[in-house]
Amino acid sequence: MSKPQFTLYSTVVGPNGWKVAMILSELGLTYDTIFLDFSKKEQKAPEFTKLNPNGRIPAIIDHGNSDFVLWESNAIIEYILAKYDMEHKLSYSDFDNQQYLRQWLYFQASGQGPYYGQAVWFIKVQGGKPEECVDRYQAETRRVLQVLNGVLAEREWLVGHHISAADIAFLQWNTSADRIILGPEYIDREAPHVRRWMNAMIARPGIKKVMDERAQKLSG
Amino acid sequence: MSKPQFTLYSTVVGPNGWKVAMILSELGLTYDTIFLDFSKKEQKAPEFTKLNPNGRIPAIIDHGNSDFVLWESNAIIEYILAKYDMEHKLSYSDFDNQQYLRQWLYFQASGQGPYYGQAVWFIKVQGGKPEECVDRYQAETRRVLQVLNGVLAEREWLVGHHISAADIAFLQWNTSADRIILGPEYIDREAPHVRRWMNAMIARPGIKKVMDERAQKLSG
Repeated sequence: MSKPQFTLYSTVVGPNGWKVAMILSELGLTYDTIFLDFSKKEQKAPEFTKLNPNGRIPAIIDHGNSDFVLWESNAIIEYILAKYDMEHKLSYSDFDNQQYLRQWLYFQASGQGPYYGQAVWFIKVQGGKPEECVDRYQAETRRVLQVLNGVLAEREWLVGHHISAADIAFLQWNTSADRIILGPEYIDREAPHVRRWMNAMIARPGIKKVMDERAQKLSG
Repeated sequence: MSKPQFTLYSTVVGPNGWKVAMILSELGLTYDTIFLDFSKKEQKAPEFTKLNPNGRIPAIIDHGNSDFVLWESNAIIEYILAKYDMEHKLSYSDFDNQQYLRQWLYFQASGQGPYYGQAVWFIKVQGGKPEECVDRYQAETRRVLQVLNGVLAEREWLVGHHISAADIAFLQWNTSADRIILGPEYIDREAPHVRRWMNAMIARPGIKKVMDERAQKLSG
């Protein structure tokens, strides 16, 4: 058996490594995952910070491209698309849709991840306190979901006429809205277009495989 | 006088519109700025949300390209670079540096802006309470500055051998660290390579012009 093409540095609990795994899986690219143990601060150890000075996951090494190293999940996703998605399964060949795809990826990176992340932190790590902070970040989670729901009421996918990395990038954190931040009834009742869109993604074998692996590791 | 090429939707207080203005200014592109009044919720009004369903600034209209509309500051910056920075004044022509530039832009969008923004919110809007939240986001601001300082100890600019949009993208929020979050003595004493880098950017006429305009509007 040949060595997988990528090494993916990830962690079990955080969503951002899984986001990259979904893209690799959907494109049929091979990868080995190294799960860093955050309780041992492995993400801050010199072996890792020499790859990513920011001390965060994910980071990748592309053994198929002279061990090219990159960090920041959506920069990694854009790299994978530019270099390996020649058939444009999860991307677009035309300039305008490339810009729209990137616009949604930046919204995901700057508007979804950090605020959902704060909600999870105050709920799970801080035991729901201060309440005003839980309220603040739950409200922002609802706001982001309503932006998505409004757009998805008008169109099947965020960009163009088929699924793209822009859609997939939002999936993992939205499952955290279900599991931790708001409970599944919020999206069920208040953001039905988001639910339809999430279900369409979860039904894809390449994505399902990664979500199943995560669920198994979270429960294991 | 011909009409400016771009319409830039911005706001006086928030840094993200000024970030785009700096890129336009440095590249010598012409633009009209429309400053939305957040106290009147103009960013949530239908006239604006038809351009940006996320109801946030900045957004642009490029009158030189069939009134192309885009939002998310760093997606706008990447669009401007791809379409108008043919001489690579603020970008790179080689694939690897293009990936590194994007990596830093995503770090800025996801790791600097949201956390500095939370610090400013708890300090300015919430009057420094809850203290544990001020502490949390001040600590994250210091952490980000130390990541930058460590990298800039080894190199003049974040990517390649000259200034790029990756550097400029961090400037406005770092001035907020000086003005609001930590005071200027933190960067002066604890992140001298960041200070050297900020000063080198501020000395550029294209950037200085935008910073002066902002300072004037903030004091006006």
